[in-house]
Amino acid sequence: MRLWGDDVEVDARIRDFTVGDDRILDHDLIPYDCRASIAHANMLGKVGILTSGEVRKVVAALKALLKKWEAGEFGMRPDHEDCHTAIEEYLTGKLGDVGKKIHTGRSRNDQVLVALRLYGLDALESIDDELQALLDVVRRFAGRHSKVAMPGYTHTRKAMPSSVGMWAGAIADALEDDRVLLATARNLLDQNPLGSGAGYGIPLPLDREMTTRELGFAKVQDNPIYCQHSRGKLEAVVLHALVHVLYDLNRAASDLVLFSMPEFGFFTLPEELCTGSSIMPQKKNPDVLELLRGRFHELLSLEQRLLSIGANLVHGYHRDMQLTKEPFMRGIAVAYDCLYVARSVFEKLEVDRERCKAAMSSELYATEEAYKLVAQGVPFRDAYLQVKKSLKKRGS
Amino acid sequence: MRLWGDDVEVDARIRDFTVGDDRILDHDLIPYDCRASIAHANMLGKVGILTSGEVRKVVAALKALLKKWEAGEFGMRPDHEDCHTAIEEYLTGKLGDVGKKIHTGRSRNDQVLVALRLYGLDALESIDDELQALLDVVRRFAGRHSKVAMPGYTHTRKAMPSSVGMWAGAIADALEDDRVLLATARNLLDQNPLGSGAGYGIPLPLDREMTTRELGFAKVQDNPIYCQHSRGKLEAVVLHALVHVLYDLNRAASDLVLFSMPEFGFFTLPEELCTGSSIMPQKKNPDVLELLRGRFHELLSLEQRLLSIGANLVHGYHRDMQLTKEPFMRGIAVAYDCLYVARSVFEKLEVDRERCKAAMSSELYATEEAYKLVAQGVPFRDAYLQVKKSLKKRGS
Amino acid sequence: MRLWGDDVEVDARIRDFTVGDDRILDHDLIPYDCRASIAHANMLGKVGILTSGEVRKVVAALKALLKKWEAGEFGMRPDHEDCHTAIEEYLTGKLGDVGKKIHTGRSRNDQVLVALRLYGLDALESIDDELQALLDVVRRFAGRHSKVAMPGYTHTRKAMPSSVGMWAGAIADALEDDRVLLATARNLLDQNPLGSGAGYGIPLPLDREMTTRELGFAKVQDNPIYCQHSRGKLEAVVLHALVHVLYDLNRAASDLVLFSMPEFGFFTLPEELCTGSSIMPQKKNPDVLELLRGRFHELLSLEQRLLSIGANLVHGYHRDMQLTKEPFMRGIAVAYDCLYVARSVFEKLEVDRERCKAAMSSELYATEEAYKLVAQGVPFRDAYLQVKKSLKKRGS
Amino acid sequence: MRLWGDDVEVDARIRDFTVGDDRILDHDLIPYDCRASIAHANMLGKVGILTSGEVRKVVAALKALLKKWEAGEFGMRPDHEDCHTAIEEYLTGKLGDVGKKIHTGRSRNDQVLVALRLYGLDALESIDDELQALLDVVRRFAGRHSKVAMPGYTHTRKAMPSSVGMWAGAIADALEDDRVLLATARNLLDQNPLGSGAGYGIPLPLDREMTTRELGFAKVQDNPIYCQHSRGKLEAVVLHALVHVLYDLNRAASDLVLFSMPEFGFFTLPEELCTGSSIMPQKKNPDVLELLRGRFHELLSLEQRLLSIGANLVHGYHRDMQLTKEPFMRGIAVAYDCLYVARSVFEKLEVDRERCKAAMSSELYATEEAYKLVAQGVPFRDAYLQVKKSLKKRGS
Repeated sequence: MRLWGDDVEVDARIRDFTVGDDRILDHDLIPYDCRASIAHANMLGKVGILTSGEVRKVVAALKALLKKWEAGEFGMRPDHEDCHTAIEEYLTGKLGDVGKKIHTGRSRNDQVLVALRLYGLDALESIDDELQALLDVVRRFAGRHSKVAMPGYTHTRKAMPSSVGMWAGAIADALEDDRVLLATARNLLDQNPLGSGAGYGIPLPLDREMTTRELGFAKVQDNPIYCQHSRGKLEAVVLHALVHVLYDLNRAASDLVLFSMPEFGFFTLPEELCTGSSIMPQKKNPDVLELLRGRFHELLSLEQRLLSIGANLVHGYHRDMQLTKEPFMRGIAVAYDCLYVARSVFEKLEVDRERCKAAMSSELYATEEAYKLVAQGVPFRDAYLQVKKSLKKRGS
Repeated sequence: MRLWGDDVEVDARIRDFTVGDDRILDHDLIPYDCRASIAHANMLGKVGILTSGEVRKVVAALKALLKKWEAGEFGMRPDHEDCHTAIEEYLTGKLGDVGKKIHTGRSRNDQVLVALRLYGLDALESIDDELQALLDVVRRFAGRHSKVAMPGYTHTRKAMPSSVGMWAGAIADALEDDRVLLATARNLLDQNPLGSGAGYGIPLPLDREMTTRELGFAKVQDNPIYCQHSRGKLEAVVLHALVHVLYDLNRAASDLVLFSMPEFGFFTLPEELCTGSSIMPQKKNPDVLELLRGRFHELLSLEQRLLSIGANLVHGYHRDMQLTKEPFMRGIAVAYDCLYVARSVFEKLEVDRERCKAAMSSELYATEEAYKLVAQGVPFRDAYLQVKKSLKKRGS
Repeated sequence: MRLWGDDVEVDARIRDFTVGDDRILDHDLIPYDCRASIAHANMLGKVGILTSGEVRKVVAALKALLKKWEAGEFGMRPDHEDCHTAIEEYLTGKLGDVGKKIHTGRSRNDQVLVALRLYGLDALESIDDELQALLDVVRRFAGRHSKVAMPGYTHTRKAMPSSVGMWAGAIADALEDDRVLLATARNLLDQNPLGSGAGYGIPLPLDREMTTRELGFAKVQDNPIYCQHSRGKLEAVVLHALVHVLYDLNRAASDLVLFSMPEFGFFTLPEELCTGSSIMPQKKNPDVLELLRGRFHELLSLEQRLLSIGANLVHGYHRDMQLTKEPFMRGIAVAYDCLYVARSVFEKLEVDRERCKAAMSSELYATEEAYKLVAQGVPFRDAYLQVKKSLKKRGS
Repeated sequence: MRLWGDDVEVDARIRDFTVGDDRILDHDLIPYDCRASIAHANMLGKVGILTSGEVRKVVAALKALLKKWEAGEFGMRPDHEDCHTAIEEYLTGKLGDVGKKIHTGRSRNDQVLVALRLYGLDALESIDDELQALLDVVRRFAGRHSKVAMPGYTHTRKAMPSSVGMWAGAIADALEDDRVLLATARNLLDQNPLGSGAGYGIPLPLDREMTTRELGFAKVQDNPIYCQHSRGKLEAVVLHALVHVLYDLNRAASDLVLFSMPEFGFFTLPEELCTGSSIMPQKKNPDVLELLRGRFHELLSLEQRLLSIGANLVHGYHRDMQLTKEPFMRGIAVAYDCLYVARSVFEKLEVDRERCKAAMSSELYATEEAYKLVAQGVPFRDAYLQVKKSLKKRGS
């Protein structure tokens, strides 16, 4: 048997190759393209390229399209290259000559850029909301367990006394620092590329400040070559922030997988976050945590891909840059889900105080023993050696 | 507006998180799971765990299911975790108690492993066919243009005389070496993990040689822990071979993008592999080549992800390993398409002999000039300096 | 012949394996460790663990050591594991029991962390200085050539009119955004981990605010588990910023390599940034630009390595984290050099106005032609098609 | 304090930037360059470009140089760009005009290629020897402990009975498969690029078969463009094989770190592979295993870098390719050390049979219980559910 599509006709295969995943990805970009197109139309009206009647028609048609999209009634056909074509075609179909005017003063290049940027800003807000919700839950968890002693490990070996609260607090502090990375990503995204055309500006007297205001951007991204250059680049800044969030969740999940082993038993995982085995009746597996752990690696590879695509190329748009859309949108979706899942974990996670307590064995206090000698005037390095020797004698 | 799915109910979101893309990916695995399940049932019959009547029923039901799948009538429901669950449920629905017996002597772990391996072997065969077809076309192209002189560049600067035939021949030789990598990947995949259970064997007297023969594997993959360990690892070997194929296509596409610029004009790209611009009426853009170039970076990042997922983990299956499925299947699909597209390129590519000839300017022959002096007895390093000096005098 | 060191004795090989490159890398950390050790000693004095006489001795010895280091007279011996051991041993050698007290209240873990962080902050300052110097040069270059027209390319095809000034301005704007990333990295690094011990705090009444002030950190990094968790993580934030700087330089270098080809001739590279060939007398190769381009890939892989090392591990220090030191210090050194080199490039780069002007061919103005029709009332999409048709007729 | 080298003079900084690490790396290439230069000289003699007297002198001088190198008396000066320049200069110094003739019929490009390839082949042989030595030790370890039962884990949870022998056998089988990858890398490296010149052949009647025989290559690498294209590419094939070796060691080390925790105690690590802590007197840390684990990530990032450097570039040598030398040589050195260290680990590793036995708790046998019911005629899925229910009742 062959799954290898030998029956697909040739031209269609090449068309599909150029379209890639855009037909799926672009579905989520439609509302952002509509918003940007409305701002563009209003601006064209203001500078006298469209009449106010034309603007009204275009804006009304875009708002109608948006309603359809929300109702699940607007999608792309297989022969649509991307959502931008589909939208322009819709407008031309509805409005005739007026629809053909909407692309005045812009290029697909800045059209895609601005839609992705609005999408990214919206996504970052949602992600920061979700991250704050997670932080709340983790901080509350840390508070509830601030007094629960638990061994601190270095080199995966018992080291010194720690606490469940200190552990959860570390995760919260890490995520707090990640919020700084998210804010930086937001700041850099917050510049309006609309009006940069294909990457060399538009020889028409556009009002870029106006679309910037209407779309809520902090400023115009002035240099048109930089607008294009920043495609992929700023997406990588966003994914970098998300990579860090998922790195922290990866490490937290790693702890939970280990310390919920019956051999340790410090944590009890809620049944709903575990699964059984198809063959072993006794199993309760921490699948959700393992997937949380694993997703980090997806994000890391997506970030790396984003900058690798454009490297070694001269400036100016290349179709290669289209391939930055999928890692960007995918990375955002994955991170968003992971944050939700992590919150569920911390909401339902239980601590077994008895097992934690039982694990507080004497070697965890060896450093304290040395400090007691220090307090009696023994230099630290000598105190250290003395305790080490006495531990050896006692056995261990 | 928010796209962030706040209306999806909680449990469903976590379920979706654990299922990931399996619902889509697994569609292509169904025939391979059926094949493996048939071999497993036959073997269970032989060793006396199923009666011959039971085997007949199970095999017939699996063949019927396969027919349905081919007709597009068998798919997964949203509540199916993966195709393996869907298939077992189908059998139990059709056959009652007999269906419940099919999972005797295997685990989901080896079931998935064997299906992916059969899929991979099939894919590698298709890819090698496609690669050979491409090689044929490239070799014929090289033959047709073996006498067409063209400047050879180093450091993106004219260096010495080359030819279109030598250029295409280099691509063919590179792809020929990639076939060695593909063959190695094939060899390593060609071991049967079915019967390794969850990763620690099955305490039943199974006949692993029998399923190995029936499924056409070269040998049993004996050690059950290694069977699981090789998940992700062998997929990475496959992707590595594909990364090399796409690396060669990336470099070839880079040449074609540059040397089909009107400024060079050595190559003429067929219209059907180019697109226009949404704003610039004059443009004929090499989109297909740019996407060919860009896809390499996707493969490179997928390969890296595959081994990164499992690193730092102890042996034994982890749910993280499920996340190796998507990069593996995706990488194969992308590479397969790229090979097809590259073949179209070389089938339709035209060489502009006039422009090539016109580019054969004198500095390309500077090394030959030096060798003429060498033939007269001048030591090479002195000849080199003499020519260099004379070139400077002449201008350039 | 074998280079494979079979004559190295066994124990030494394992010792070398654990030391890795630390003996070389740590050389640059010595001044930072001394600074931190002085602050630590002062603090131990204040909280009564050292007497003021002991503090004086330790501080004096550390300052003397620093002098020796500056004079190139302090280094590590082969049997020193790292610079921290070497320094403690020096103190013990000089001061006897007093030297043995310096490690009271700290662990190697926080000692390394704080030294690396001070190193990183210093490095970021130097890098930002160098980046500003580069920005100055690029902005001045852009100003000098703001009126020099040059073709703008998309898909490596002539697209619309651009200018040398716009091109250089894009690079400057990109680097300006990178300064935001550097500032973020700086902010996150600017927290004091000294006092966090091995990762679980120190059971002594240390004054962490005091060392924070003395070392000039913005704040205490409070949670000791997070201090350790941030090892590798914050280094990755720094490298991420540098990756972006090098990405911009990679793209700029790519432009310069292409457009300084005699076939284009827009730019003339200074002789001192080019090299010849060992065999071709005529060559003038843009080696410096090519290395600038290539170094980006080193940084990208170093960044990816930093987070990959720690992923899938439980919290708490692991010796694996030692391997984050080399990519961090190496990445900084490489980026610093690249900035210097890029500045030399822009200082010496010449623009060939004649060649630029000659390249401003008519197809670059096709969009403007369409806009002329738009001004006459033709809808843009129709104007576009009209110009396209007329261009086809004219030949091209 | 600044470490940032502001006192280095300008030209020197740019020179150092172009030389990079070559001055250090090239030290190890000298013997290979000498071997290749001797073969080249002999061939030039045979085809009549050098007289037999000249050949004798050149060969004698190269052999003398080699002796000096072995005695540590030949190295590069700061003003030598690389070892190839140093060697040619030495010959010219010793032999005058005859030395100036050695570079006839070759370019630095093929000279570097052939030296690196000979180096790589030698390295692969040493690595395979080391790998076989490791395999021997692991197989003997597996044999000694084939009967020692140990829990098998999935999802880091007790799953089914396993054994120490099965565990070690899995590592051996994985490494055995890696030998296939190493052999493939060897095969691909085993082609002679000498005579391909700068990448477009040499306009002289060279005898490439002769140098191929003399240097022991399996065949001529015929196409000169492919010779250059394979720079970086074949190095990546080598590193890929090494990445797999280190992946297996990473997983083995991960097991040993976990299961040598006192909480498990299945393995006892030899004192000489552990270290203590600077602050905690009781610690015995598995540093060597952790570094073994961590080095995998270095290799993975080096492999990725190798292909990333050349991607998106047109064919023909670029100076960027020089940057493939360091990851190649570094990756080999790191992998070689890791193999040695892993062998030490398995030579000295002890198994605690008592702790292993004590860990064989009843839930490991749940699948066997189900199979007992299957033997009584209960369909597997029902047997599974029955055991699951009874386990829940019993507690756990």
